[in-house]
Amino acid sequence: MHVFTEHALMKDLHQAGEKIVLLVLDGLGGLPLEASGKTELETANTPNLDRLAAEASSGLSIPIRPGIEPGSGPAHLSLFSYDPVTYQIGRGVLEALGIGFELGRDDLAARGNFASADKDGTITDRRAGRIDTEECIRLSAKLQDATGSCLPGYEVFVKPVKEHRFVLVLRGPGLGGELTETDPLVTGKQPLRATDKSGTPEGARSAELVNQWVSAARAVLLDEPKANSLNLRGLAKDPGLPSFGEIYGMRAAAIAVYPMYRGVASLVGMQPIPFQGDRPAHEIDALEQAWNDYDFFFIHIKKTDSYGEDGNFEAKAKEIEAVDEVIPRILALEPGALIVTGDHSTPAKLRSHSSHPVPTLLWSPIAMPDAAQSFGERACATGHLGLFHATTLIPQAMYHAGRLKRFGA
Amino acid sequence: MHVFTEHALMKDLHQAGEKIVLLVLDGLGGLPLEASGKTELETANTPNLDRLAAEASSGLSIPIRPGIEPGSGPAHLSLFSYDPVTYQIGRGVLEALGIGFELGRDDLAARGNFASADKDGTITDRRAGRIDTEECIRLSAKLQDATGSCLPGYEVFVKPVKEHRFVLVLRGPGLGGELTETDPLVTGKQPLRATDKSGTPEGARSAELVNQWVSAARAVLLDEPKANSLNLRGLAKDPGLPSFGEIYGMRAAAIAVYPMYRGVASLVGMQPIPFQGDRPAHEIDALEQAWNDYDFFFIHIKKTDSYGEDGNFEAKAKEIEAVDEVIPRILALEPGALIVTGDHSTPAKLRSHSSHPVPTLLWSPIAMPDAAQSFGERACATGHLGLFHATTLIPQAMYHAGRLKRFGA
Repeated sequence: MHVFTEHALMKDLHQAGEKIVLLVLDGLGGLPLEASGKTELETANTPNLDRLAAEASSGLSIPIRPGIEPGSGPAHLSLFSYDPVTYQIGRGVLEALGIGFELGRDDLAARGNFASADKDGTITDRRAGRIDTEECIRLSAKLQDATGSCLPGYEVFVKPVKEHRFVLVLRGPGLGGELTETDPLVTGKQPLRATDKSGTPEGARSAELVNQWVSAARAVLLDEPKANSLNLRGLAKDPGLPSFGEIYGMRAAAIAVYPMYRGVASLVGMQPIPFQGDRPAHEIDALEQAWNDYDFFFIHIKKTDSYGEDGNFEAKAKEIEAVDEVIPRILALEPGALIVTGDHSTPAKLRSHSSHPVPTLLWSPIAMPDAAQSFGERACATGHLGLFHATTLIPQAMYHAGRLKRFGA
Repeated sequence: MHVFTEHALMKDLHQAGEKIVLLVLDGLGGLPLEASGKTELETANTPNLDRLAAEASSGLSIPIRPGIEPGSGPAHLSLFSYDPVTYQIGRGVLEALGIGFELGRDDLAARGNFASADKDGTITDRRAGRIDTEECIRLSAKLQDATGSCLPGYEVFVKPVKEHRFVLVLRGPGLGGELTETDPLVTGKQPLRATDKSGTPEGARSAELVNQWVSAARAVLLDEPKANSLNLRGLAKDPGLPSFGEIYGMRAAAIAVYPMYRGVASLVGMQPIPFQGDRPAHEIDALEQAWNDYDFFFIHIKKTDSYGEDGNFEAKAKEIEAVDEVIPRILALEPGALIVTGDHSTPAKLRSHSSHPVPTLLWSPIAMPDAAQSFGERACATGHLGLFHATTLIPQAMYHAGRLKRFGA
C-alpha cells in the first residue's frame, strides 16, 4: 500500500538529472567489542569517507523494520525502494539469480540441498556432510542428465551452487501456486512431500511435478556414498516487481562480484555490468567504463559482510579502508549524489547479520553538511537524515541529483 | 493495515529466546521548570539507570502520534504494540478494567456520571456538584439494589469509581453494536437516548436495554438532593484484541499496583501477578517470584505520573530514584533485554499528561552502546533508537533477546 503510493509519486515527479551512485558495503554496521570501544567502521582509518561525511547528510538506516534482522535479498530490495514486507521474494528465486541463472518470468525455482539418508529414506544429514563444491558440480550434472527430460512438456535445469547447495528450475506452462518445502528441517525424519497452499490449479500441478522430479532425482542418487538424497526449499517464481527504470526514470546498472546481488538487482530491472577482478578497485574500473551509459549505479562490496560473519573485526575494518581508497575515483566522475551505506549490520562481535540500524551518508554538492563530521555509527546518529527507512533513500538521492520535480506549485 | 502486517510478521518470525522486562514509569517524561533547567528525570540521582544508558540504545518514544496527548489506556496498548488509533478501546471498558471489574468478552460496559437535573429532566450539573466518593459508593449500591434485576435475562452491575463516576456493566446474550452516549455534554439540555449506529440486531437490542436501565435508574434517583440523574458514556465491549502470546510467542506477566494497568494488560492476554505492597521494591519481589514462569514481564510504576499530575516536581524525581534503586535486582535476574520507558510524559510543570516524547532505553548485552551516556530526555535524543513509535519497541527487544528469526535468507 505504502510502497505503491511512494512509487506512484516518483513516477509523477522524476525528471532527467545528474548521475547517482549507491555504494553498498554489505553488513557495514557493527558493534564495539566492549561497551566503551569503537565499531569496525569507527576503527577503520577512512580519511575520504570522513571528508565526505563532513560535507554530507548522515543518518541511520532501518532496512526492514525496527528489530528485524534482515536477510541479504530483502535488505537490498529495501535499498532499491521496494518494501520487502510487501514484496516477499522466494529463496529459490534469489538462489537462481545468485548463480546467474537467467530466470524466466514463469519459471519455478527452488533451492536444493543434497542430503544423506538411511535405507528407508530418513534424513541423517541435511547437508550430506557438507560435500565440497566439486562434488556438487558432479552431482548436479548427473541429475541434469538423468532427470532433465523426466517431466514431459517441461524443461528441467539442475545447477550447482556451492557445497551441498544446488538450484532446480522447472520451465513450462502453468506453473505457480504456493508450495511447501520437502525438508523436514531436522534429522531423523522422513522428507516431506511438496504441497500447495494456494488451492489453484497451477499450485496442484506444480506440487505434482515437483514431487515427481524429487522421486526421480532421489532414485538417481541412491548409489552415492554421501549425497544419496536431496530436499527442496523456497519454491517460488519471479514475483514480477515493478520496474526500477519506470518508477525512477533512470537507466540503472549493477556492479557486484557475487551473482546473488546482480540477481536481486536484475529482479527490479537493473543491468548487471560484467567486469574482471573481485576487489573494490576492479568494481570502480567497471563504474568508470559504464559511466556514460547509465544514470544510476549500484555497487556492491561483499567482503565487509563476510569478515563480519567470520567474527574478524580487523579484516572488516581493513576492507572498509580498501573502499575508502577508491572514493576519490568515484568523486572524480562527478556524480550528482553518492550514497554510502550498508544493506544491514553484520557486527563481528555477533558473527551474524543484526537488526542494528546502518550508518549511511548522502553526499552531494547541495547536501546539508550536518553535525556528523566523520563516518561512523555514532556520528550518523547526529545527522540530518535521522533514523530512516531504507526505502526512502533513493528519493532523497534523486532530489540531490536534480532528478525530482517540485511537488505542487 | 500497518499494525496487522507487523503482527503477522512477528507471528512468522518469533522463536524461543531469553526473557524480556518492560519497565514502565507512568508519566516518566517531564519538562524543566525553567527553560535553562533540568527535567524531573535529569534531576533525579540515578546511577544505575545512567550506567544502563551508557551500555544501552536510547531514544524518544512517540506513544500515539506526534502532538497527541495520550490517555493511559491507549498509551499502554501502544507499548504492547497495538496501535491505539487502530485498536480503539471504549472508555466504558477501560473504566471497568480500571476498578478491577472482571469484564467478560461479551459484557457491555459504560462509564456513568451522576448528574443533577431540574424537574423536567434538563441537566443542570453534569457532575452532580462533584459529589464525594462515599456518596458515589452509596448511590451505586442503591442503584445496584433497585435496578440489578430490572432487565429480564440480563445481569446488571453498578460499581462506584470516584466522585461522580461509576461503571455500568450489562451481561447477557446478544449485546453489541455501536451505541451513542446519553450525555448532552452541556447543561441546560435534556439527556439523549442511546442509539445504535451499527444497524445490527445486537445494536438495536443493546440500545433498548440501555435506555430501559437509564429510565429505571433515574426513577430511583429522583429523591436524591444532588445526584438525581445520571448519564452514560463510552458504551463498549472488550474489543477482542489479538493475543500478545500468539503474536510474540511469549508467556507474558503484568506486575502493577493499580487495577487499571492490570486490566489493560489482561485485554491483550497478559497474566496479572498478585503481590503484597505498593512500592517498586514490592513489584520486584513479584518479578523474582514469577521469573521462571513467564517470558515477558510488564512492570508498572504509577506514582511518577501521580506526582506529575500533582505538580510535585521533587516527589516525582524521588520516585524515579526509588525505581533506580531496584534496577540491580532486575539485572541480577539476567534478562535478555530490559526496556525502561514511560507510557507518556506527565511534566510536573503542566500537572497533566503531555504529548512530549518519552525517554526510553533498551538495554541488552548486544545493544549498540550509543552516544547517550545517562538517562534523560536530552541524552535520549542523541541515541540510536531515534524518535520512534512506541509500537516498535517490543520487536526491538525481541531481537535483542534472541527471539526473532532472520527475515529472508
